[in-house]
Amino acid sequence: MSSLPIAGTTPWIRIADARDHLGGAVEVRGWVTHHRSSGKVQFLVLRDGSGLMQCVAGLKDVSTDDWEAAARLTQESSVVVRGTLRADTRAPGGVEMGLQAVRIVALAEPYPISPKEHGTDFLMDHRHLWLRSTRQQAILRIRAEVVGAFRDFMDREGFLLVDSPIFTPSACEGTSTLFETTYFDQKAYLTQSGQLYQEAAALAFGRTYCFGPAFRAEKSKTRRHLIEFWMMEPEWAFATLEDVIALEERLLVYTVGRALEARAEELKSLERDTTKLARVKAPFARMHYDEAVARLHAAGLPFEWGSDLGGTDETVLSEQSETPLFVTHYPAAVKPFYMEPDPADERLSLSCDCLAPEGYGEIIGGGQRMASLELLERRIDEHGLPQEAFEWYKDLRRYGSAPHAGFGIGVERTLAWIAGLDHVRETIPFPRMLYRLRP
Amino acid sequence: MSSLPIAGTTPWIRIADARDHLGGAVEVRGWVTHHRSSGKVQFLVLRDGSGLMQCVAGLKDVSTDDWEAAARLTQESSVVVRGTLRADTRAPGGVEMGLQAVRIVALAEPYPISPKEHGTDFLMDHRHLWLRSTRQQAILRIRAEVVGAFRDFMDREGFLLVDSPIFTPSACEGTSTLFETTYFDQKAYLTQSGQLYQEAAALAFGRTYCFGPAFRAEKSKTRRHLIEFWMMEPEWAFATLEDVIALEERLLVYTVGRALEARAEELKSLERDTTKLARVKAPFARMHYDEAVARLHAAGLPFEWGSDLGGTDETVLSEQSETPLFVTHYPAAVKPFYMEPDPADERLSLSCDCLAPEGYGEIIGGGQRMASLELLERRIDEHGLPQEAFEWYKDLRRYGSAPHAGFGIGVERTLAWIAGLDHVRETIPFPRMLYRLRP
Repeated sequence: MSSLPIAGTTPWIRIADARDHLGGAVEVRGWVTHHRSSGKVQFLVLRDGSGLMQCVAGLKDVSTDDWEAAARLTQESSVVVRGTLRADTRAPGGVEMGLQAVRIVALAEPYPISPKEHGTDFLMDHRHLWLRSTRQQAILRIRAEVVGAFRDFMDREGFLLVDSPIFTPSACEGTSTLFETTYFDQKAYLTQSGQLYQEAAALAFGRTYCFGPAFRAEKSKTRRHLIEFWMMEPEWAFATLEDVIALEERLLVYTVGRALEARAEELKSLERDTTKLARVKAPFARMHYDEAVARLHAAGLPFEWGSDLGGTDETVLSEQSETPLFVTHYPAAVKPFYMEPDPADERLSLSCDCLAPEGYGEIIGGGQRMASLELLERRIDEHGLPQEAFEWYKDLRRYGSAPHAGFGIGVERTLAWIAGLDHVRETIPFPRMLYRLRP
Repeated sequence: MSSLPIAGTTPWIRIADARDHLGGAVEVRGWVTHHRSSGKVQFLVLRDGSGLMQCVAGLKDVSTDDWEAAARLTQESSVVVRGTLRADTRAPGGVEMGLQAVRIVALAEPYPISPKEHGTDFLMDHRHLWLRSTRQQAILRIRAEVVGAFRDFMDREGFLLVDSPIFTPSACEGTSTLFETTYFDQKAYLTQSGQLYQEAAALAFGRTYCFGPAFRAEKSKTRRHLIEFWMMEPEWAFATLEDVIALEERLLVYTVGRALEARAEELKSLERDTTKLARVKAPFARMHYDEAVARLHAAGLPFEWGSDLGGTDETVLSEQSETPLFVTHYPAAVKPFYMEPDPADERLSLSCDCLAPEGYGEIIGGGQRMASLELLERRIDEHGLPQEAFEWYKDLRRYGSAPHAGFGIGVERTLAWIAGLDHVRETIPFPRMLYRLRP
């Protein structure tokens, strides 16, 4: 199998490009998803990763060897086929292939995933094969589109990609949820956020973002938690809370619009109600923390002013909104030490979370960062953090301090909302969750 | 400093966009890189991250307060200025601002980095500030361009981004250079390569790639080694060694072309000899391993047939080439267990490394993967690896096995070559090297 069984001059095409080759003879390489025979006609459906294609062979269309090869095909067997393409509205993708040659690359053993219901653990154990299902293919194609949209948007807004490091020497918000490793003669921690480094980058380049994996060793087993997840974190020098709220709004409008346009077929196959996504237009709803508390009280929840919003609180607030919802001015005590205080009420911070609608909850956390060296030093003390570890970070206030603001947006939670998924475990190719590290 | 000192209706522009606003009054927010006064005229050069702008104030152009503020400005102080833009070929970027207002956002303390020579350790300790230098800005802008070129190229070739996981449960090529962490009740390792997962992805989606950080706990202190680096790894089902060699060639031609076009100014500021980059055109030079050995012998090196190429060997081979050089068919013994054997000589593998010219050495490693389950199982045994850890990987040969091939390309080594840098430490925003974990 070091070379392929059909070597010829017929062009190898992707199924996604089949419409460009109607009437022509082409070669397709892929895997059998369905096979049936009516005695004189055999039908194959092939997946090549770009789409599905129905192929038909009459007894006289192919050689006897090829006819018998086709008859032996099992689900997920790999094949190379040659034939001519014709439009057929009944076929998936609207194109059907009349087969001229069928060559087996490898016959698959009996495939463990069948259309019947499997338990989640079984599917997760077989994630390397589960990826081949129509549903997982649709989700991961939308994921790639969301990631591409995030990047393209930031690039067009003049933000420069400046990767934050994954290994960090100190824990910026406590060590309890950090993964630790031995880094030669010292300890290193895996990043939970690239933000502090983006602040350095933004004061050098004005507008920057990082985009990479982040890690939280949280013993949470909810539909919103992954141990390893991907996050984009833009940071903007000379920008205020209001500037980044407007930026977040543009980013989400762009991303949802692009998913609706470029991945309409995948959203349809997931039975996503896209009329709800079509309502994601500026201006988004927004709500001061005080108002959020009042709403929660009105909904009968025993919420205490000063606490952080929990998953249930976010669900209640975001169920009431058609657009994403900005909740602003959280109490400083529930936000990290570097948040700029609200000049109107020092107990509050210039922070903003964005909650996705339909009950999905937080997808973005952000705000304005502290510009004053003196206040920053006080906060580091108040949080019981070592000043020494933050000397470099404090340098950003010694040399050219400026108001600056930014946010972090999670790929998986954003995707769960856009694709309308119940659980984040399907939003990432190889999920890492509590006790789930395989395959 | 929670809001900015000039609140008005003048548009805030980026210096990079200054040419679009000639004749108009605009606001710029940035940092002072140079300041001098002739008594009646003050000159400022500002950096806003998108470019540099020269600003001029006559004594009568601005208020007394602003004049005195300008006089106090230190290097890296942050300011907001307002003025009108005029073309001036002597100014950096070709545009000069006639100042109307100068407001200090924050006066910088005496800046530790001066034009005098600093030692590498000093600069690395101050990486968060060193990023502001013209040289580092140029390098990291080219980096973002290279990353963007990699992604855009793969997307256009029909490859789907499918992120490989960072946490892996087992060590695919031995544990000696792996970072280990405690993952709840088990051990996890940080990825050195996402390739095995890309093979699963490619057999589901046909053409995929991942792009993320990778980690090697190597005690190497050379100009080519980073502990944490970024790598793109495409994988292509039904493709052969020749297919991926052609793909790599197209990728590099595209990437170098885009850097030459989009980052001409930055390459110039780095004094890169771009005539050498302009010669990077297909077809690239290529050489069978046997020929590489002969060349090394001809150059007087005591190289033994059967060993892997070392840094010096790569330098010698790639110095002789104008284009990147493909070295193919390495001995199976020096490549990972999953390489497809060369049918023409079973001692060799269907592998290919790409060496950047001018002595830069390996930037890509790749080849065709083993398609046979039986052979794969034998190789896993021969390498002393546990079969159990690879059951999922072996599934890829049980269900729809096919020839497939791919490669990994390192961002930092590719950038070092394109930007003409002596050492990879400047190619990544926050380098992680042996004993170097800060800032």
